[in-house]
Amino acid sequence: MAYLKYNYQDLKNLCEIAFQKFGCTKEDSETITDVLLLADLFGIESHGMQRLTRYHKGITSGMMKVDAKSEIIHETPVSAVVDGHDGMGQVIGRYCMELAIKKAKETGVGFVVANNSNHYGIAGYYSRMAMLEGIMGISMCNSEAIGVPTFGRKAMMGSNPIAISMPAKPIPFHLDMSTTVVTRGKLEVYNKKEEPLPIGWAIDHTGKDSSDAKQVLYDIQNKLGGGIVPIGGSSEQFGGHKGYGLGVAVEMFTAVLSGGLTGNHTHIGNVGKCCQSYFAIDTGIFGDRDIIENSMSTYLQELRDSDKAEGQSRIYTHGEKEIQGYEDRMKNGIIVNENTVKEIKDMCSDLNMNIDDYLKEI
Amino acid sequence: MAYLKYNYQDLKNLCEIAFQKFGCTKEDSETITDVLLLADLFGIESHGMQRLTRYHKGITSGMMKVDAKSEIIHETPVSAVVDGHDGMGQVIGRYCMELAIKKAKETGVGFVVANNSNHYGIAGYYSRMAMLEGIMGISMCNSEAIGVPTFGRKAMMGSNPIAISMPAKPIPFHLDMSTTVVTRGKLEVYNKKEEPLPIGWAIDHTGKDSSDAKQVLYDIQNKLGGGIVPIGGSSEQFGGHKGYGLGVAVEMFTAVLSGGLTGNHTHIGNVGKCCQSYFAIDTGIFGDRDIIENSMSTYLQELRDSDKAEGQSRIYTHGEKEIQGYEDRMKNGIIVNENTVKEIKDMCSDLNMNIDDYLKEI
Repeated sequence: MAYLKYNYQDLKNLCEIAFQKFGCTKEDSETITDVLLLADLFGIESHGMQRLTRYHKGITSGMMKVDAKSEIIHETPVSAVVDGHDGMGQVIGRYCMELAIKKAKETGVGFVVANNSNHYGIAGYYSRMAMLEGIMGISMCNSEAIGVPTFGRKAMMGSNPIAISMPAKPIPFHLDMSTTVVTRGKLEVYNKKEEPLPIGWAIDHTGKDSSDAKQVLYDIQNKLGGGIVPIGGSSEQFGGHKGYGLGVAVEMFTAVLSGGLTGNHTHIGNVGKCCQSYFAIDTGIFGDRDIIENSMSTYLQELRDSDKAEGQSRIYTHGEKEIQGYEDRMKNGIIVNENTVKEIKDMCSDLNMNIDDYLKEI
Repeated sequence: MAYLKYNYQDLKNLCEIAFQKFGCTKEDSETITDVLLLADLFGIESHGMQRLTRYHKGITSGMMKVDAKSEIIHETPVSAVVDGHDGMGQVIGRYCMELAIKKAKETGVGFVVANNSNHYGIAGYYSRMAMLEGIMGISMCNSEAIGVPTFGRKAMMGSNPIAISMPAKPIPFHLDMSTTVVTRGKLEVYNKKEEPLPIGWAIDHTGKDSSDAKQVLYDIQNKLGGGIVPIGGSSEQFGGHKGYGLGVAVEMFTAVLSGGLTGNHTHIGNVGKCCQSYFAIDTGIFGDRDIIENSMSTYLQELRDSDKAEGQSRIYTHGEKEIQGYEDRMKNGIIVNENTVKEIKDMCSDLNMNIDDYLKEI
């Protein structure tokens, strides 16, 4: 698979104009673009420009409503439940995390959950929003069922990411992880490369290990059984029941608390209706913020400095690779694979835009 | 390894008297006993009667102070930081979770963290305390470093459990999981049985996979390197970096927020000084409690009812096995392995108690 490289600014310009042509406001277009491109800047290709086509389809099919307004349907000083009214996930996400941060500044904590939402990109975007204001941020979301419970053979949970961001120097702690071993995007990459999956990532419709990316993806898409296994694998021996439990916990924190749909009920027919949570915690409720941040910084440095396994030269802390990649890509450009470029071209022609007016390969 | 079986009531009586002889108040003795025996009733042998000897040693060596009083050193309406003053972990734990529940009833959430604590038994005891009052409970603790970061060869985190309990009918959701693949107790069992460890649980002091339980335990004990790997394994291929990230998150929620020691600094010399967190969230802050509980109940039932993998007859939800075991053991007795019985006998003779006056095999 060949890759082409473009300037960040050019991609940003193209996306912002495209979303406005889809009917989003200028502000919403900027938000959606910012979420998409942060994924590419962080090196999370599966959630960046590659997702444009999903939004293109989602908007034109009516699953995603560009003019929806998020609505608070329940509120306390420390919490809120937001109905996303099938809007763009990123717009709902920004609204909810801003609300959570505001509450955290007022009361110490802000717990906001959203239902009737759509895919919102990388969960880490929202936890990072809090972190950039010096507040601990947590975000989770459920999604179309791809994760199979231990001893099962039917997907019942989404990839159900958990993102946690906490201020620290020089590198903040920024964990953004699916609770399945891998995400569907990883299977798509293996499928495109026509390589067998490592055993231990996915199971077929009978519940047995499968290395056939194409078949597993087809079966998930058509809800025929099989799916991706939780972190820890398909049995209890390596803790698969723990990953399964974390996946259920994410369904609880998103769908159950918001009164929305659990992963096994979302994305049936032309509806998204996934759910998310946005938690902001001001560490000042536990004492001096600077002392707490320094303690985090010290521990993370101790981890990076700790003894390396033979053959390894470096121990990373979470967010370190992303920040390095961010700086490099902002300066030297973002790679986009040729299939995605083709999809962008198709989208542009639908919108009466000429891709060559926006993107120049570098 | 042979097992003997005793009545719950007899074990309870013995423990409560033993802890009073150690100098604990009657109330504290009851609390400690309740935590220990809940582990046995739940079938978590490693954290039940088997742990008595650790408390025996901890108290006689002065690491655990039976007369310590938990002290609130920082407080807001939604949070508190508690200095455990090296008291018994269970007593600190009960104090902190009661405080968190009280705050949750007043403000919707209660986030309490403790430093200068000691081993507190199963994390799930404390999250369950909240659940029994209809409130979502979360508890985490750090402990002596046994978990090795991805690409490392030195233990830098504890087994760092996360426990989450949420009311549901007929079976509450009760997840209680270490963020390492297995706990040290599992290695001890393999060591006693003289069986090789499955590859993928532990690494040696060079960072390579090890199946030698005895050596790994010796190396952890003497801080020579090696340890247990995080959920997901020792590499990134199956998500080991995710388990590592969860382990770091637990250090953050316990040690960093409480101003205490991270796992790599606890249990050096004759000090414990581990840290814990106790979070209580009243689901009423998100709407109608009954509707939310019903939604959780429905989802858990759908999981249990979902299609089974070939060769499997049952999908469990978290807490189901424990509750079944609890009822059975409360009625039919608790098994204790013969080594543990020997240790109890030694403890009794130190305390001028005759074990036969308390325990009768059934």
